[in-house]
Amino acid sequence: MSKVTEQIKAPIKEEMNLFEQRFYQSMKSQVPLLDRIIQFVVRRKGKQMRPMFVFLTAKLCGKITDKTYRAASLIELIHTATLVHDDVVDESYMRRGFFSLNALWKNKIAVLVGDYLLSKSVLLSTDNQDFDLLAIISRSMREMAEGELLQLEKSRKLDITEEVYFEIIRQKTAVLISACCESGARSAFAADEVSSKLKLFGEYTGIAFQIKDDLFDYTSSNLIGKPVGIDIQEKKMTLPLIYVLNTADNERKKWLINSVKNHNKDKKRVAEIIDFVKKNGGLEYAAQTMNAYKQRAMDILFSFPKNEARDSLGLMLTYVTERRS
Amino acid sequence: MSKVTEQIKAPIKEEMNLFEQRFYQSMKSQVPLLDRIIQFVVRRKGKQMRPMFVFLTAKLCGKITDKTYRAASLIELIHTATLVHDDVVDESYMRRGFFSLNALWKNKIAVLVGDYLLSKSVLLSTDNQDFDLLAIISRSMREMAEGELLQLEKSRKLDITEEVYFEIIRQKTAVLISACCESGARSAFAADEVSSKLKLFGEYTGIAFQIKDDLFDYTSSNLIGKPVGIDIQEKKMTLPLIYVLNTADNERKKWLINSVKNHNKDKKRVAEIIDFVKKNGGLEYAAQTMNAYKQRAMDILFSFPKNEARDSLGLMLTYVTERRS
Repeated sequence: MSKVTEQIKAPIKEEMNLFEQRFYQSMKSQVPLLDRIIQFVVRRKGKQMRPMFVFLTAKLCGKITDKTYRAASLIELIHTATLVHDDVVDESYMRRGFFSLNALWKNKIAVLVGDYLLSKSVLLSTDNQDFDLLAIISRSMREMAEGELLQLEKSRKLDITEEVYFEIIRQKTAVLISACCESGARSAFAADEVSSKLKLFGEYTGIAFQIKDDLFDYTSSNLIGKPVGIDIQEKKMTLPLIYVLNTADNERKKWLINSVKNHNKDKKRVAEIIDFVKKNGGLEYAAQTMNAYKQRAMDILFSFPKNEARDSLGLMLTYVTERRS
Repeated sequence: MSKVTEQIKAPIKEEMNLFEQRFYQSMKSQVPLLDRIIQFVVRRKGKQMRPMFVFLTAKLCGKITDKTYRAASLIELIHTATLVHDDVVDESYMRRGFFSLNALWKNKIAVLVGDYLLSKSVLLSTDNQDFDLLAIISRSMREMAEGELLQLEKSRKLDITEEVYFEIIRQKTAVLISACCESGARSAFAADEVSSKLKLFGEYTGIAFQIKDDLFDYTSSNLIGKPVGIDIQEKKMTLPLIYVLNTADNERKKWLINSVKNHNKDKKRVAEIIDFVKKNGGLEYAAQTMNAYKQRAMDILFSFPKNEARDSLGLMLTYVTERRS
């Protein structure tokens, strides 16, 4: 991605560099154990997509302000906290090539560090009276927790509907990107209807992002390091599989359900399920749906006058739906 | 405790009843799984000490307001969240006679429910512009997480000093009671110096409370359901043991350290350690220290004019240091 990232970042390059320094400062703690872990967590940082959305939407709305930096810090603190908590939640022992915090430091520390970061984020807001930002981001945090719980309850039910799938991915992924865009707009003191438009832009972008992520479970060409078929092994129902389940004849539907339910740990059978999904248009359907969301996001973007921030957000949307990792 | 509780609660009885109803309402969620768990968590509620401190200090400062209810809700939401997270943190499978959330629902759900409650608490504050309360309570949440991490890092080191012990119990227990009292004062729109005094009152009370708790590890007469000697088995160094370690001659010190370090799972040896602590004044020393903190808290209380709220807070202090569970 690095070349595309450079291109996307170009209009906000200086601001992003300054942000990284400020953000690292804001994470510091007096407790040695905590400080070591935070350094470890910060080193794992990903593509910086969330702060990029904040800075680009602020710029799109007029100008980047001090509040924009705080909005990005707030979101990164909360995102980092939920990532740390996810190490408990997902029981995934690998994340982006590093050992997860969980594997190295155990659950209890992960929970405490997450709570520490959450409280820091709230204090950052109360210190600066950024109550609108705090409300936006707390609402998204509540929805994320609800979304994960909904997923735990529903996504392993084999009769999950598309509607529930969309509700899950909206809550679990889209609300945070949506919060980035809404906060970015607020930090530039945009009018309410402008903030609302960008909130929706973020939501559509987030949904497209998650569909793409779910597609990676079927495509071996991904560079994310995530092996193919993991979702199926975990009985996690995503759009490609939901589509073929809903369109298969009775006999094949039975075979699919039986395969996912009782043979999900059998690698050969998982490969057969993937093959079935591919042959029956599951990937095309998911890709089409993703592109429809991308288009809706693009339409919103094009209601803004052309400038370099808008160009970057357009590139970002293309990246989201065409990335290979 | 029930008779004493009734007496303490008398001046705020109606308010506490109304609070319980309102608080339960504020916890509701749309996600069925979440709502079931919240009902389960609420049923486990303890002695309601925290809301009592909020209402009594508000009353002491003049009057209970709408903001007092929100302060108590905020603290209970955050306290409940940390309790739920504690189920992960402590890996304790029993808490107050119920199975812990962790045992029944697994770690991942505990983390998510905790995060959900935290976000609800922040939203309650932003909805009502209670930014002073939110700052007070987030600060205490940050300190609690730091305190737990400090405890993880330090309290199992056998050479822990009294100073570190006090820092740990201040952060882990006292800051929350302190936040209750400070928020109570704020909610009654008390002057800054009055809020500060009550903050300190809460801190001293909390330290006395935790020393009492640590003493239970040595006394079989407790009704808390907590077996004796658990802290020693977990190599958790508390005041009675720290004192005898610091005052024992070299030979006995070696025996103590070796016993805690290498024989902490041996029930007979744990009983011998307890016996040694008792015979060498560890319990008296801890009790004296506890009473010194109680006295400091009492002195602050007596700087307020006598009224029924002050009487109740005095009873509360006595209860804290004389309770048997």
